[in-house]
Order: sequence, then structure tokens, then C-alpha cells
Amino acid sequence: MAVVLGPNRYGKAETRVVRVTRDGGAHRVKDVNVSVALSGDMEDVHLTGDNAAVLPTDSQKNTVFAFAKKHGIAAIEDFGLLLARHFVDSQPTISHARVEIHEYGWERITGGHSFVRSGGEVRTAVVHGDGEGGGESVVSGLRDLVVLNSTGSEFHGFVEDEYTTLAPTGDRILATAVTAQWRHRGTDTRWDDSYRAAREALLMAFAETHSLSLQQTLFQMGRRVLEARAELCEVRLSMPNKHHFLVDLEPFGMDNDNEVYFAADRPYGLIEGTVRADDAPPAPAAWN
Amino acid sequence: MAVVLGPNRYGKAETRVVRVTRDGGAHRVKDVNVSVALSGDMEDVHLTGDNAAVLPTDSQKNTVFAFAKKHGIAAIEDFGLLLARHFVDSQPTISHARVEIHEYGWERITGGHSFVRSGGEVRTAVVHGDGEGGGESVVSGLRDLVVLNSTGSEFHGFVEDEYTTLAPTGDRILATAVTAQWRHRGTDTRWDDSYRAAREALLMAFAETHSLSLQQTLFQMGRRVLEARAELCEVRLSMPNKHHFLVDLEPFGMDNDNEVYFAADRPYGLIEGTVRADDAPPAPAAWN
Amino acid sequence: MAVVLGPNRYGKAETRVVRVTRDGGAHRVKDVNVSVALSGDMEDVHLTGDNAAVLPTDSQKNTVFAFAKKHGIAAIEDFGLLLARHFVDSQPTISHARVEIHEYGWERITGGHSFVRSGGEVRTAVVHGDGEGGGESVVSGLRDLVVLNSTGSEFHGFVEDEYTTLAPTGDRILATAVTAQWRHRGTDTRWDDSYRAAREALLMAFAETHSLSLQQTLFQMGRRVLEARAELCEVRLSMPNKHHFLVDLEPFGMDNDNEVYFAADRPYGLIEGTVRADDAPPAPAAWN
Amino acid sequence: MAVVLGPNRYGKAETRVVRVTRDGGAHRVKDVNVSVALSGDMEDVHLTGDNAAVLPTDSQKNTVFAFAKKHGIAAIEDFGLLLARHFVDSQPTISHARVEIHEYGWERITGGHSFVRSGGEVRTAVVHGDGEGGGESVVSGLRDLVVLNSTGSEFHGFVEDEYTTLAPTGDRILATAVTAQWRHRGTDTRWDDSYRAAREALLMAFAETHSLSLQQTLFQMGRRVLEARAELCEVRLSMPNKHHFLVDLEPFGMDNDNEVYFAADRPYGLIEGTVRADDAPPAPAAWN
Repeated sequence: MAVVLGPNRYGKAETRVVRVTRDGGAHRVKDVNVSVALSGDMEDVHLTGDNAAVLPTDSQKNTVFAFAKKHGIAAIEDFGLLLARHFVDSQPTISHARVEIHEYGWERITGGHSFVRSGGEVRTAVVHGDGEGGGESVVSGLRDLVVLNSTGSEFHGFVEDEYTTLAPTGDRILATAVTAQWRHRGTDTRWDDSYRAAREALLMAFAETHSLSLQQTLFQMGRRVLEARAELCEVRLSMPNKHHFLVDLEPFGMDNDNEVYFAADRPYGLIEGTVRADDAPPAPAAWN
Repeated sequence: MAVVLGPNRYGKAETRVVRVTRDGGAHRVKDVNVSVALSGDMEDVHLTGDNAAVLPTDSQKNTVFAFAKKHGIAAIEDFGLLLARHFVDSQPTISHARVEIHEYGWERITGGHSFVRSGGEVRTAVVHGDGEGGGESVVSGLRDLVVLNSTGSEFHGFVEDEYTTLAPTGDRILATAVTAQWRHRGTDTRWDDSYRAAREALLMAFAETHSLSLQQTLFQMGRRVLEARAELCEVRLSMPNKHHFLVDLEPFGMDNDNEVYFAADRPYGLIEGTVRADDAPPAPAAWN
Repeated sequence: MAVVLGPNRYGKAETRVVRVTRDGGAHRVKDVNVSVALSGDMEDVHLTGDNAAVLPTDSQKNTVFAFAKKHGIAAIEDFGLLLARHFVDSQPTISHARVEIHEYGWERITGGHSFVRSGGEVRTAVVHGDGEGGGESVVSGLRDLVVLNSTGSEFHGFVEDEYTTLAPTGDRILATAVTAQWRHRGTDTRWDDSYRAAREALLMAFAETHSLSLQQTLFQMGRRVLEARAELCEVRLSMPNKHHFLVDLEPFGMDNDNEVYFAADRPYGLIEGTVRADDAPPAPAAWN
Repeated sequence: MAVVLGPNRYGKAETRVVRVTRDGGAHRVKDVNVSVALSGDMEDVHLTGDNAAVLPTDSQKNTVFAFAKKHGIAAIEDFGLLLARHFVDSQPTISHARVEIHEYGWERITGGHSFVRSGGEVRTAVVHGDGEGGGESVVSGLRDLVVLNSTGSEFHGFVEDEYTTLAPTGDRILATAVTAQWRHRGTDTRWDDSYRAAREALLMAFAETHSLSLQQTLFQMGRRVLEARAELCEVRLSMPNKHHFLVDLEPFGMDNDNEVYFAADRPYGLIEGTVRADDAPPAPAAWN
């Protein structure tokens, strides 16, 4: 048996950059977390520790800061593309660059330079640049979009095996924390418009679907995104079923007509699925 | 030397209750995390394991659920008072009850029963009931209110000792995650109005104070709360200085005119202080 | 454009089971976290909400508990295989089952039934059962194995581009939190022996490699595992470079001969790579 | 109403220092997290933003690093005392200094300079220096010491009110994550010996107490520490009751003779108490 090097990548993860832009008295703030992963001809560094092909992760971090200055940060997809191109184009040993960016939202309190964080939700982008002709690909998305329907959700008609004790229900709370990613057919999207529309489609589909299962809701959410935006061709969703159990109040002489719930932590259902346009091009590197 | 029992308390922590109220098609959701701590004549259980004075924490949890059904959950301060009174009044061995409640906000997506979590900020209340004549006390507050000023903050004129290398600055980012608590003079407050006004006062003071130090901003935030609401008599604030360091871009031939910042995690400054009305009554048990 | 369902799976995540076995007065404790994900013919539930093919995640949880009773929990790989087989064999609509198990360690304090948790490190297994002829596959591993070399690590000879400011070093701290997975050629391994040997190989390779780069250390760690255990054919490692920066003490008139370090949180380098036996069979489903 | 400044403090929190000491080829590593909080004459900075009395938190951080170089880090209590004295003695505006230190353990892998983190448990110290004659005080302790008894724990004979549904039990799992602090009568303790003995006393008392309630176990743990070490006079314990619920396997035709447990997250019981020597001096500042 001989031992060989398989797939590998390296980079600087979680460089936290805040970029301030001043339009007169009104400031704009972009607050992002940038993770770079590079790959290419890296046999030597693994086998012998020869770093001749290695751009230090410290230099990658510096590049993120310098690019934030030089180019500003428009949409995170734009910023990711700039970085991915730079690494692939400027480094002969780097054939692929993956740039993942998380953006934290801020809302204006008042006036021009005071802001309050707008919640736990995070906007995401993964950009991939391929120097060997594979081209560029962009995946947008969000994390920690926590939603809840207090009615309009049923669950029945399921398989019952010897370990099944769950009672069917015609009315339950449905709650989840949405992680979603959607891939673009190309790289000339108006990213901010696209993001807002996709997010809105997710929310509206969640709100408007009378749910017979979380899988059904997931599919409708993906479908609605694709129908809203022609530039998108596939949506991937990961949705924990954040269980809200109806508390048994009978021992205390009370009924519980879907009024009092225990919000459980673990275990939780986890529903994951992909919705695709039938004419979607093959999945690019950024999708995996 | 003899060994004796000192201060002690016990209870059920973090009972996660979601209470749904239906006004026709429109639902209201209260999402809270309730922690109960009881104390009283507990020598026996500690010294011999005799549980005759112990109301199980499981029963405390049941009480939280049953009260959510019976009384609903209006303001969390109201719910806390109901629970604290119940434990002190119904249990002869319990002389004090402390109820701490955290509330997570939800906003309507559309229609009557679909909601999206409104961010990381948490509303808090600590209610204390004392069966031995100490009466009731209520402390309201919030956690994780993250705010940032992109200018309007200076820091200079400080002590310089042999370990000081920090340069004075006339313009920096000031960012913090506010934890605040404020105590009420009595228990007949209109809690929701009071909360909204106190939160607004914190935000406006943060935005409108030209800051020479985070301590100065803290004091102004406390002062503004007290000036806004006569029913409040003391405010306690804990504010980490979430450092945003200006990145040195000179090695790359760039200046950095307060544009590109590195948002650091640790270490962080931590500024804690209390602002009090000079006619504030002595601090009650809920304050400590 | 038509919208179609892509890859999907569902299941119960993070069922926390503690299984006690009594051998006379001496107890054994297995403390595990079990996540099940099933896939198969799930078009209907996504497209119409028809649950006729859906075994509820609640039943999956019950199965985990019932199997813990019926079969006990030997190695987590064994327990995963039992569960994966059960779901695939007993449910006609389920063609694949993925079972991921995390195990938390306990050490005896004294006597037969008192234990103390043995640290942050977690043993992992991913087992995959395929009802369509793909067979079974097992991947073992660990997470959060935090290691540090206080010397014996260099980093120099790297690419220097216009954004490089890092100085080469001949002596630095090398610290990481190892996440590792290794795949087995078959399913008849003596799992506990294999785990202990693989873990030992990782530790010894980390300790004994004079490191010129974290990539080199990673490769040696993977190689050592494969050389130690013939039943293993591929190792995947994810190793954050937990930076320890030498503090500049010159302003205080002190040198710093690799004595005082600042342990930084973010950003961090992230080195990921795979080491494979050249005769490794194709990667099975559990590997991805 | 006038608004006045109440109690306040400020400082640098969570400075992460790793100190390496070389005894020939064998290295020693101290890995600590240091939080400093200073208070004194701070009216001006709060009321007007005048920083003339403020030693920057950045200088405090530098002091931590410089002291790690100059003095090394023996026991964390020693290091805390050095820092507290320094701040109080060198700064006329600082009358009190509180230094809290957390220490993370490392074990040798092999040879002289390779280490593996020894688990989730953290050793703690809080040191207080008072420039106004209050003297110095030291509180030692630990966090996240997770322990479990798989038998030898009962719970019955408790109060039953209208909300009680809990069944009495003669055999349950008792598990907790111990947070403990103990205060020293003086400051001339041999800190490492004292720590090891106190930790051992906690573990042995947990293991050897046949428990009728977690309160009883808590008291025995505190008592054992005081009996073991004459230099200690009070112990404070906070112990969540990490519930392990016996799973009902009857629906599957199985009994469950204390074999299969569900380890729940929330809610949890929380038992807090103090055990004191009857001749303990009054509690110093570091205790609160």
C-alpha cells in the first residue's frame, strides 16, 4: 500500500471586516465575515513541507482588507467574485478559489451614523473561481431565518410501524430555522434585488402553504423562489422541525385547545431537500 | 469548626413556553423562557435529605404551563408576578420566590398566524416575591441589543503608564451589545409602554451622544431612561466595548480614512455601571 | 420551466440516549447522540403532502431508544449498523439510511457507578445502509481533539505577493482542534481497537512531526493512521490553525523569546485534506 | 429628581495568554483567560467624558502580557494577586481591582513540547485588591466539572400540590455540571495543593453520598471541601440537575429497568447553595 494525497484546500476563515462608506453625513456600513479556501498544486507542501506554492493565509486576510478598501463592498456576491478572481488570476499555483461570505444586517437608528443590528438572520454567498476553465459560479442564501405558523399545519396518514406512538394531528405549530442556498445560472445577477426577492418568496411560501408535512412546505418554498427569479435554477433547503409539543394540562383539570406549547430543543426533525428547475445546468463547484 | 448552611435557592430553570392566543383569525404568540428559584426553610433537605419542604422543580414547571393556560401571558412582568405570588402564598415553606423571564420577539409575516423571529434582542424581567413582608419587586430589561456608531466617538486624555501604547483617537467606531436592567418604584407600571420607552431612550441616547468614552455614553443612556419614565428609579448597564480596529493598509500603499475595520472578538473592554435617581428607594431583592 | 424535486432526506436529529449496563455492582455508561436521516421514494410527500411513505421522525427516535434497550450499545459503529439495517430492511419506501452517532466519554471516579466526563473530545461514526445493493459503509472519527506543540514548528519559504506582510519563522506554536474521519474497507472491524489505534496515531504523528507547515503535519497524521490500521483506507482531516501570536513586548523593554503568546479567536487558518491508500475502493455514501 | 452615578467598574475582559516556560527540553504551558475590572474615582469620565482617571483597557491588556513575561504564571491565584496589587498600587485613581482568571488544562502527549487539552473543565480564580484598607481576597474554584451517578440517588417525600405529577423514585440517575467557588481565609495558601484537594473532595463527596436530593449532595460536597482544607472557610455551589428521564418502552413491549435514559436539555433543575465554616470571617469583596 502506498499513501497518496487526496482532495485538499486551505485558507483563512472568518476574517471579520466592517467597511464604512461616507456619503456626506450619511454612512453606510457593511459587516461581513469572509472565509477563503484555495486549492491547486499542493503536493509538495503536504509531502515535504515545501511552501513554495503556498500563499500564506495571512496574506489572504490582508487581501480581504485591502480589497474592502480599494473596491468597497457592494453586494457580497460582487466582493466574493473580486476576491476569487484575484486569487486564481494572480497565483499560478492556485487553480480554484472558494470565497464564502456571511453578512450581518444593520438598521439605522436615526441620523447618519448610528445603527442597530437587525436580528439573527444572516445573508450568505459562496463564490467559486476556477482557473482551469470551469468558470465562476455563485450561490446565494441565508441562515437562521426563524419562522413559525401557529396553525395551518397538519401531520397524519404516515407509516405506522411497531415503534410508532405519535398521534396524527390536524392542527399543530410548525416552526423552523431556515437555511437556504440558491444557485445562479450566471454571474451577472443584480444580487441585492435577487436576494430580497428570494427571501420574500421563502417567507410568503412558508406563510401561505397549508402544510400537510414540512417536506411539502419545503418544496413550496423552493418552488416559489425559482418561479420568482429566472436567474436562479436550484434551491437547497435545510429545515429543522423545531418541535412545539402541546402540554398535557388534564392533570390540572384544564383542556389545551392549541394554546400552551413546550418548545423543545433536542431531538428535532431535520428535513433537507433540493428543488430544481428542469432546465438547470449541471451543478458547479460552489454548489457542493 | 462546624459547617453550616448558608444562602441557598432552588428551582426549575429555562422552561420554554409558547402561548398562542386566538382573536378570531388573528393569532398572538408569546414566546418565553421562565426560570423559577425558590428559597425558604430548607435546612432539612440539605442536612438530611428530607424533602418535606421541597416543592419539586417538576411541579414548578407544571405551574408555569398551567398559569400560561389559566391567565395567559400579558407582559412578562405580569406573568412573573402571578407566579411569584403563587409560590409564596401557596407554599408555607417558601418565603421567597424569584422568577426570571426572557421573551423572544416575533413579527407577523402576513395574515393571521405566520411569524418571523425579530432578531437577537431579548426582553427580560426579574420578579421577586417575599412572603416575609419584603413585598414584591420588579426589574425589567433587555439583552443583546447590538448597536454601533460609525463616527462621533473619541478617546483621548487618558492615563498613560509604562504599559500604555494606545494612541489617542478623535474618531473611532463605538460598538456594544447592551445588557440593561431597570428597576421600578412599584408594581403597578404599564409594563409594555414602559419597556418600549426605556428601549427607545437607550437607543436615542446611544445615537445622540457624542462620545468621549464609553462610560460617558453609558451614563447618558441610563440618565435618558430615568428621565423618560418616572416609574423607574435605577438603571444598570453592562456594555462590552466591541473593538473595531482600523486596519493598517500602509504596507499595501493605501491610506485608511476610517473605512476598513477589523471587528475583534477577544479581548474586549467591559464597562459596567449604574445610574440612579437620587430619590430611589433602597434596592429590593430583585435587583441583586 | 418545470420545477422538480432533487436530492432529499429527512430524519430525527440529536436523540440523546444514555444506556446503563449493570455488571453486578459495576455499571457501564454509554452516552450518545444519534441522528438518523432516511431517503427513498419521497416524491409524494414533497409534491402533495401525502405522508404514506413517511415513517415519522418520532418513530425513528423511539426506535433508537428501543434498540438501546434490546441490543445495548456496544461500539457506536455497531449500533449505527443495527439502526441503518433496520430502517432499510423494515421500510419498503426507504432505500437509504444514514446514521450519525457522537459519543461522549466518561471516566470512573471511584467504585461502580460514579463518573466524570472525560473532556471535550467526541468520538463519531457515520453509518450508511443502502437497500438498493450499495451495501453498508462505515466512517469513524473524532472531533474537538485539541492539541498544541510549543516548539518544533516552522513556516517560511512561502509565496510573497503584494499583500504579504507575514515574517517567516523558524519556531512557532502550532495548535489545532482536530476533526478527523476515516473510512473502513469493510464492516467487520473491531471498532474500539481500531478507534484507539487511529486516535493514538493522530496524536503521535502530531507530536513527532517536526512541522514546516500545517499541511505537512496533516498529511503525516493521515498517513500514520493508514499505516497503523490495514482496515482503513482513507482519512479526512479538518484542522484550524489556532493562531498563537508572539506578543510584542519591546515597548515595555522586554524581549519575548517564544514565551508569551496571544491566543487569537478569529480569523484562523483552515487546512483541510484527505490522505488515501492507493488501493482504496471507491468512496461509499457514508464518506460524503 | 437628580440623576447620580452608582456602582461602576471597567476593564479588559478575556485576554487570552499562553505562557511557555522551557526547562531544558521540557516545556510547561499555562493557558489562561484574564479579565480585569477596575474601580475608583470615576465620576468625571461618566459625567463629562474626562478620561484623566482612566487607565485604558488596552494598557491593562498589555500589563497582563508583560507580567506573564516578567513574573511567569505560577498558580493563577498568584498571577491574579500580582496584577491586582499592581493596578491598585500604581494608579492613584484606582481603589479596587478585581482579576478573574480561567485556566484551561493541557496534558503531555509525549516528549517535551506536545500537549493535548484535558477536557472541558476549567479552573478559576477571582482575586480582589482593595487600596482603601480592605485588603486582598482570593476565591478559587472550577466550572464545567460534569459528573454522573448511575444509581444511588432517590427522590421522594416531597411536597405535592395541585400541580404535582412527578412520581417518587428510589433509583435515578443524578447528573450535574458543577460550578464551585471556595474562599480562602488568607492569601498565603499553597494554591495548587489546595485546588487539587478541593477538587478531589468534590468528586469523592459526589461519588460517596447516597443521595436523597441534589441539595443533600450539594451540602456534602461543600462540607467535604471545608473539612479537607483548613485554609478554606466557605464554598458556593451551583449545580444544574441535568435530568435523565427513563424512557417509557412499554408501548414496544419492553420494560426499562433503569437502563435507557433520555438526556434532556431544558428545562433543568438548578440547585444553588453555600456551605460555610461557622468561624468564617465576613465575606470579602471577591466573594460577591
